[in-house]
Amino acid sequence: MQKRKIGPSTMLFPMPSVLVGAKTSGRANFMTVAWCGIASHQPPAICVAVRKKRFTLDGIESNAKFSVNIPGADLMKKVDFCGIYSGRDKDKSGLFTVFIGDLEDVPLIEECPVNLECVLKHQLDLGSHWLVIGEIVQTHISEDCYTEDKADPLKINPLIYSPSSQNYHRLGEIVGKAFYDGRDFE
Amino acid sequence: MQKRKIGPSTMLFPMPSVLVGAKTSGRANFMTVAWCGIASHQPPAICVAVRKKRFTLDGIESNAKFSVNIPGADLMKKVDFCGIYSGRDKDKSGLFTVFIGDLEDVPLIEECPVNLECVLKHQLDLGSHWLVIGEIVQTHISEDCYTEDKADPLKINPLIYSPSSQNYHRLGEIVGKAFYDGRDFE
Repeated sequence: MQKRKIGPSTMLFPMPSVLVGAKTSGRANFMTVAWCGIASHQPPAICVAVRKKRFTLDGIESNAKFSVNIPGADLMKKVDFCGIYSGRDKDKSGLFTVFIGDLEDVPLIEECPVNLECVLKHQLDLGSHWLVIGEIVQTHISEDCYTEDKADPLKINPLIYSPSSQNYHRLGEIVGKAFYDGRDFE
Repeated sequence: MQKRKIGPSTMLFPMPSVLVGAKTSGRANFMTVAWCGIASHQPPAICVAVRKKRFTLDGIESNAKFSVNIPGADLMKKVDFCGIYSGRDKDKSGLFTVFIGDLEDVPLIEECPVNLECVLKHQLDLGSHWLVIGEIVQTHISEDCYTEDKADPLKINPLIYSPSSQNYHRLGEIVGKAFYDGRDFE
């Protein structure tokens, strides 16, 4: 297969499309983030790349706490809104039903099937972005997203962001079982 | 919507399923990783959470270079194999067609539609895992994954990992246009 070199890029597929929340300037604020990943297992940690000028960064830093809310594909337009506009210019606190979990002053989104409550642990200066690393201290999952007592990804129906095309996708069909189908190569 | 609290977790949806490569103990080695995300834009950076005992970590550290290879859904069984078995016990160097790009001694996988060449920049000790942060210095994309000169996510057909169910999925249908559909809420 012929390959084409395109130089340094940020081409990772797939990417999540999550809403990072923090109380900022006294109100709930949410920014859309695709640059987010799990950072460790024990203790559970998540990392989020945040452009330095972002409004929500003020809230993350001043509270040393934030949330990661995983929207279903049905929330696509509101998710995109939170990616286009800054909380400096638009009050996003009324866009969603906000609830508070274990951590005071950390806004969580009722409409998102999965909510992670995070305590800020590290910040790494990577140039255009801070890499923000939080310990995940609590997880909330909507009751209608379980199948036989396990969180069901197809019911969560997460929104997926694709770079290059800049499209949102939904999760597609199951193609295999992890930690199982690879045994064929033994 | 009623929510159920499940405590600290690593429930992020969706997750990628990529093959991280490094020359380890003199041969090409690849490990499967779901805990991976973009970490910064300028310079482009990627982070990968690596369990401390992982064989590939030796190669990443000793070369200070690694690759991130994005497999298509057709490679599911081989990807799962590389997640089940350690390079300490299984020689994975013959599983794929390996090529070398700009960085000496960084194995890239021909069969993967996207390959990122990375230079190790930071390592952060997060407990069970190192968070490994690399600058992305080159990107290779297979010629048959372009549509009108842009990388096409549906042709790349990335493998997606879902925690909880531990299933692999393919990318589903397009549900919206990023930086566009959210304008409706203005």
